[in-house]
This record gives sequence, C-alpha cells and structure tokens, in this order.
Amino acid sequence: MTGAEARSRLAALGLEPAQVDVLVAHFEDADRRGKTGHGLLRVEWLEGQAIDPLARAVLVESGEGYEHWDAHGALGYLVLDEIVRATLADPPERARVVVASRCFPTGVLGYWARRLADGGLVAALTATSPRRLAHPDGGPALAGTNPLAIAVPSGDGEPVVTDVSMGAVTHGDVLAGRGSAEELVPFGGEQSYKAFALAVGLELFVGALAGPEHGVVLVVARPDHDPVPALRELAAGRRLPGADV
Amino acid sequence: MTGAEARSRLAALGLEPAQVDVLVAHFEDADRRGKTGHGLLRVEWLEGQAIDPLARAVLVESGEGYEHWDAHGALGYLVLDEIVRATLADPPERARVVVASRCFPTGVLGYWARRLADGGLVAALTATSPRRLAHPDGGPALAGTNPLAIAVPSGDGEPVVTDVSMGAVTHGDVLAGRGSAEELVPFGGEQSYKAFALAVGLELFVGALAGPEHGVVLVVARPDHDPVPALRELAAGRRLPGADV
Repeated sequence: MTGAEARSRLAALGLEPAQVDVLVAHFEDADRRGKTGHGLLRVEWLEGQAIDPLARAVLVESGEGYEHWDAHGALGYLVLDEIVRATLADPPERARVVVASRCFPTGVLGYWARRLADGGLVAALTATSPRRLAHPDGGPALAGTNPLAIAVPSGDGEPVVTDVSMGAVTHGDVLAGRGSAEELVPFGGEQSYKAFALAVGLELFVGALAGPEHGVVLVVARPDHDPVPALRELAAGRRLPGADV
Repeated sequence: MTGAEARSRLAALGLEPAQVDVLVAHFEDADRRGKTGHGLLRVEWLEGQAIDPLARAVLVESGEGYEHWDAHGALGYLVLDEIVRATLADPPERARVVVASRCFPTGVLGYWARRLADGGLVAALTATSPRRLAHPDGGPALAGTNPLAIAVPSGDGEPVVTDVSMGAVTHGDVLAGRGSAEELVPFGGEQSYKAFALAVGLELFVGALAGPEHGVVLVVARPDHDPVPALRELAAGRRLPGADV
C-alpha cells in the first residue's frame, strides 16, 4: 500500500487530514524501521475496527508531576501524538507521570518515546493491549504483550531507544504474516516466566492507574546526565538497540 | 549463617543496631523466598566491600512529584529502606518519581516495592549495578542485570509483586553457587537481544537521572483501580509472579 492510498482510505473512515497525517507518519516510520506489523498494513486492519472519528481525548487532570488523559475511545495513535506534543510544549521541570485511559491502539511505543527524546526528554512508555500471553503453565491469556519503550537523549546526536514487547512475536508480526498466533507466548524460551512476569507487572501497573480498559503510562523527565556517549564508546561500534535504520 | 551471627558480624562492620535490623530483615526475607543470592550469605560479601558505616543519604531535592536522594555511598539497602519509609509517611497525592544517586547495593528490589504496595501504593523500581551483560554479538559488558520490580496492591489482600532481572542468572546466583559467571548473559536464549535491550534502556534511564554511579529510580503512585482480583480469577489458581512463598 502506498502512502497516498493509505491517506485516501483513512480519510474514508472519517478522519480529518491532520489525523491522517499523524497515522501515516507513524505507519511509514514503522515500515522504514522494519516493524511492518505496525506499518501501513494497519490501514486495512483499522477498516475492520469500530472507529469513532469524532472521539477526542480529554485532559481530565493536570499537574506538574501527574497528568491523566481520558482517550474517550479516540485512536490511541492520535492520543499519544497529542500527549507527546503537549509534553514537549510544556515539559516537566523535573518529572511527570502521564496516564491515558481507554487508549488503543498505540502502535510502536518507541516512535512516541523517540519524539520525546528528540525534544531532550527521557521517556519510559508502556501500554496494555488485548490479553494474548498465557501463563507458562498454560491456561487462558492473562496479559497483553505490553511493550516497554525507553528513550534517552544524547549530546552526541541520536537518542538510544529501546522498545521491547514481552511476546516472542507481536500481534503485529502475526498480522504481517511473520509469526503465528501459536507463537504469541512470552519470549525467553525456558525462561519465559521472566517475560511473563514483566507482562503481568506492566499489565497491573497500567491497570491500577488507567483502569480496566487498555491504557498507557508514560514517565517523562528532564535528564540530569548524558550517559549515552560513554555507552556508545564502550560498545565500540556494536549496534545499540533502536539505532536508526 | 544464623540471624544472630549475621547481626554480630554486621555490627562488627560498624553498623548501628537499627541499620543491622534493616539488613537482616531484607536478607532473611530473601532467604525465605528462595533468593538466597541476596540472603544472609551477603554478610560475608559485605565484609569484603569498602563500607562507610557513617555515610548517610541526603534528600537533595524534594517536591510533590519528584525527589532526588544522594546516597553519599551509604549502603543501598539502608537508602531504599529510608526512601520506602519516607514515601509511606508522605505518599504522593498522585505520583512521584524518586531518584537515588550513588546507591548500591540495593538487594531484592521486589522487597522494597512490596513494602510500598503493602502500604497501598503502586511501585515500579529499577536500579543499576556493575556492568555484567555483554551485547549478544559479544564484546565487553555494557549493562548491569538491572532488575525491574513492579508491585501492585490489591483489595483481596496480597499485592502482586513481579521482580525480573535481565540476566539469565544474577550475580547473586553466582555468589550462591547456583550459576556460573559465564551464564551472566541476558536471558531469553535466541531472543536475548530483547532482555539486553531492556537492560540497556533501564541502564540509560537510571543513568540520565541519577548520574554515572549506580543509581535507583522509583515510580510510585496512588492506584485509582484494583486490577488484581480480576487477574487472579482469570488465572484460576495458577501461581502469579511474586506470590508469597
């Protein structure tokens, strides 16, 4: 699918041009980084979802160190774009925890975290999604793949962005034909109980703050130090996670 | 080693009785939960470290949503105990990011997070430690095993506490003879690049806030929801991470 085709099909869902821009920029970045499961193929997936193009996120509580957004069913991509822009426009003096309720789908979390780091902020971002990971002992799915993205800016230019899903494959991989639903298990093989525990911890952390529907928690802060150049030097040319492709 | 022997040996290091109590309570809890690498055997390990029993952590910056402690080389166990007690005595209205610089060793992070959850707070806690994990492609160690502990209180009694180190084994396992230094690699086998990315992300996140020496970042918040009972019901008796042993 081309960007132009994506634009016209997203517009046909009732989205405004500025909203379409946000989605296409995210999808094209995902494709460029090889995360095709979160790329333009999601346009077709969105056509099968119940979308309310008129839904708008509301900032229901706002303080220096805490913000709570209710996405009201607006597309998670749009809500995260709004949170990123609002945070860059009014960054915390020190640190802020930002919670978004009823916020789905959120796409590549590293994409949003990277934008915050490009603006000079440190960001840790997690989000819940449909329960797909079962207990290593079996049974029903108990937790989403619940990625954790961390982005840290650097004086030497590019931020380091890590973005790890707790699934051996992601639902996006399944959509992209690069993994099967049977592989939707916690990553780690014999030690998959560790990725399962991370998924459960993040699931409950987000749930305790954002409520029973899918939600987002972002921790954003001003860095006091610049640890990236020393790590890059130590890595001696080895590719660090999230290095630009 | 018995608790009594541990007490007398810790006192011989110059620690005060109240400090000894903090350490022994942590070590005995670790042993009780099977984390013997962080248990009483650490007394002997501490005897080989350069300890300043007179060092005291200083709260250098304090706000509703952000706190920064400089541990000044005080034992990390003691600093985290002080942070936990201070946080329970004056919890955030909503959320707070607590940073501790020069804070090592910190022991079982789930122990501190659990105490916050026992007091009704949601906690996510991470800490850096000596670099022991190399890039999956090889080379020098780039990141500590950098555990992430998450504790969420529950209306049905026991909190859920997850506590995951990014190493296939921990340095504590090596000390306890339950793992070899060669196994100090990111967990996950073929997907160890994921645990490595988590370790690097947490390393830089803590480094950006706490500085170049080992540090701690705690995100603590008041829960708005109680997601644990529904998860327990869904798990239908399967043991959730961190269930009391």
